[in-house]
Amino acid sequence: MADTSADVQRTLATSTAPGDEFRALPWPRQREVFFQLPDSVRRSVVEDLTREQLQGFVRRLDPDEATDVLALADEDRQEEILRRLDDDRRERIEFLLEFDPESAAGLMHLDYVTVGSQRSFEEVTERVRRYEDRTDRFPTVFVMEGGRLLGELPGQALATTTGSEAITDYVHDTPTADFDDEQEEVIEVFRANPESSVAVLDREEGEDTVLGVIYAEDLLRVLEKEASRTLYEFTGVTEEESILDGPLSKVRNRYKWLIVNLGTAFLAAAVVGLFEDTIAAFTLLAVYMPVVAGMGGNAGTQSMAVTVRGLAFDQVSLSTGGRAVLNEIIAGAANGAITGLLVAAIATVFNQSPLLGLVLGTSMVLNLVIAGFFGTIIPLLLDRAGTDPATSATIFITTATDVLGFFIFLGLAQVILGI
Amino acid sequence: MADTSADVQRTLATSTAPGDEFRALPWPRQREVFFQLPDSVRRSVVEDLTREQLQGFVRRLDPDEATDVLALADEDRQEEILRRLDDDRRERIEFLLEFDPESAAGLMHLDYVTVGSQRSFEEVTERVRRYEDRTDRFPTVFVMEGGRLLGELPGQALATTTGSEAITDYVHDTPTADFDDEQEEVIEVFRANPESSVAVLDREEGEDTVLGVIYAEDLLRVLEKEASRTLYEFTGVTEEESILDGPLSKVRNRYKWLIVNLGTAFLAAAVVGLFEDTIAAFTLLAVYMPVVAGMGGNAGTQSMAVTVRGLAFDQVSLSTGGRAVLNEIIAGAANGAITGLLVAAIATVFNQSPLLGLVLGTSMVLNLVIAGFFGTIIPLLLDRAGTDPATSATIFITTATDVLGFFIFLGLAQVILGI
Repeated sequence: MADTSADVQRTLATSTAPGDEFRALPWPRQREVFFQLPDSVRRSVVEDLTREQLQGFVRRLDPDEATDVLALADEDRQEEILRRLDDDRRERIEFLLEFDPESAAGLMHLDYVTVGSQRSFEEVTERVRRYEDRTDRFPTVFVMEGGRLLGELPGQALATTTGSEAITDYVHDTPTADFDDEQEEVIEVFRANPESSVAVLDREEGEDTVLGVIYAEDLLRVLEKEASRTLYEFTGVTEEESILDGPLSKVRNRYKWLIVNLGTAFLAAAVVGLFEDTIAAFTLLAVYMPVVAGMGGNAGTQSMAVTVRGLAFDQVSLSTGGRAVLNEIIAGAANGAITGLLVAAIATVFNQSPLLGLVLGTSMVLNLVIAGFFGTIIPLLLDRAGTDPATSATIFITTATDVLGFFIFLGLAQVILGI
Repeated sequence: MADTSADVQRTLATSTAPGDEFRALPWPRQREVFFQLPDSVRRSVVEDLTREQLQGFVRRLDPDEATDVLALADEDRQEEILRRLDDDRRERIEFLLEFDPESAAGLMHLDYVTVGSQRSFEEVTERVRRYEDRTDRFPTVFVMEGGRLLGELPGQALATTTGSEAITDYVHDTPTADFDDEQEEVIEVFRANPESSVAVLDREEGEDTVLGVIYAEDLLRVLEKEASRTLYEFTGVTEEESILDGPLSKVRNRYKWLIVNLGTAFLAAAVVGLFEDTIAAFTLLAVYMPVVAGMGGNAGTQSMAVTVRGLAFDQVSLSTGGRAVLNEIIAGAANGAITGLLVAAIATVFNQSPLLGLVLGTSMVLNLVIAGFFGTIIPLLLDRAGTDPATSATIFITTATDVLGFFIFLGLAQVILGI
């Protein structure tokens, strides 16, 4: 199964006629595959399908999915296809197309009805039945009172009450999101209320308008993408890139980050340059340079990974992070002592230079303390500044560990070895 | 809000009486906070609560959540608390405690009823109503036929049908998982069927037994954890570690990975050692060493991030990956040419050594080709071997880029500069 899906996706990505390949798939598979494809391949499939074919595909999708597909088509085809859909679907899709796909509204669908809090169970059931007849889908029932959203009436209540009670006896609180909230904020809302659907609102003075509803299932695709997003940000690859992209777009997506890194590498090189005479007098230092720098970088990214997760789970912030920073510094000193002793022993035995061992051991401790400090404080600062802490933290952290690491190592060597 | 939650979690993590702090929270917050806490803090809260307090907390949770809490208590308290719960809850929790929390069964809850396919709507509604009276929750209705799961009867059908039809007219296919499937496999199932609940089965010859049901919402916590897991694996931090842990556990969690890295750093150092005479004759090489190695490492982890996501989304595999590897190599060569030209220009201008520039530019191209190749092939190989590709890929990739990078750079220098 894994291989089949990879085969299909690769075929679509490399085909000169991805539309034909896509149409050859049986229907439920089309839907599954399409939403798994990277953005660039989705676009090329949509472009390669004829208007009729695209229309046939869109017709069978839910309106929120159809919206995602049509957003990829050029305006003329979008309009042509919309014109040919039945009124209800057209209106829904046109409505959804107006929102930012990266916002809460981009996650919502429209399977809801709103009813006044004075309605009887019979009236609500009738509304729901009519909705279902028309759309073949069961709506979420939102109850309004005095222009405000009172809450949700669970569909189950309709199935099991006798109907003489007031519907308000059965209304649950509904968590809400504003239509222009970011997707991360919606995830926050679900974290606190995993079992509820979320009402998407347009809040105006004195009056809430329900625009749509988000279920937990609507977040699955977002969260799955999130899982690899962190690693992308960490390595400076742009969000859209996929393994199926051609070399040209790979170069375009990455060269900038590599050039930024080149800049920081030159900073480290400049520090080494300060000690050219020391290295010339004692070449062994050049041999141990990769050890000192590598260990600092590794320890720093460990601290960073832990801090980034802590930020994601609301376990730490800049103002509460003092203890965390201290703990990372202590852990860095301890890990530096462990690895420093090993390195010092090796230098003493192999190079018969206890002084070099002393230099190496001491710089290891100091460099891992630096790694712990910067690996924690930089993500905390970036988070406070409102930036995603995973995106640019690495570059600052490795610059700190490289620049300071080399400076400490070569500086200590100059002093202790007396060169 | 973000700060409040961070405050609470930090207080619980550092308090000497986390039980008291926890009890001071209002009820719905207790539940929210508890499941956001890192494992180590959860455990210390559970240990610090008295038996009565723990029982009070567990009593208000759903059985599947109560199971997660009780799994952290020692056996004596577990039994004491279970003994005091009402029969229905006790049986459910005891049942759930028997399964591996990391498996599909660890995600499931028990709000379902099974009915035979010959039942009438009236009979099913009666079953559901009785279930609801007893538990206050609406069950998923699974329809069985001849010992096999036929599918799910949507709750909505009960609300809107008139009741004269056969229930089988309304049964939907249900995706299924085996109780011992890994959580990743359950995520796969939801990827193909985001709108369904998943039936957890014990499949025996000729007979399926439904053990539980998983909803999309049950996956949210798993997927959220997944998002930071990749970065953890990438940096060699163990899954359980949190920003709130003390320094001792941080050291324990990380020193092994650092020692492994130390080993690979020594490999790189050994390669540099081969060229000690070259460096002694031309110290500038030591200055540029961090540039060459750093760029290779960065480019390699970029390729790796893209490949790891491709594997997660089933877009590539070892057998279909030939094209992907080739694309990464081409992109590596191009990015190597871009950055190599920059470095060569700098060396030519600043160090007035066009030959050094030639060495640097050439090694940059070669090292980024190596980075593209190993950054792609290593995750593909690890995936084929059944290992998580994010965990150990980094170490192989940076070893390759460091060892081969230094070898190429210093080797070329020896040849071209004639030292």
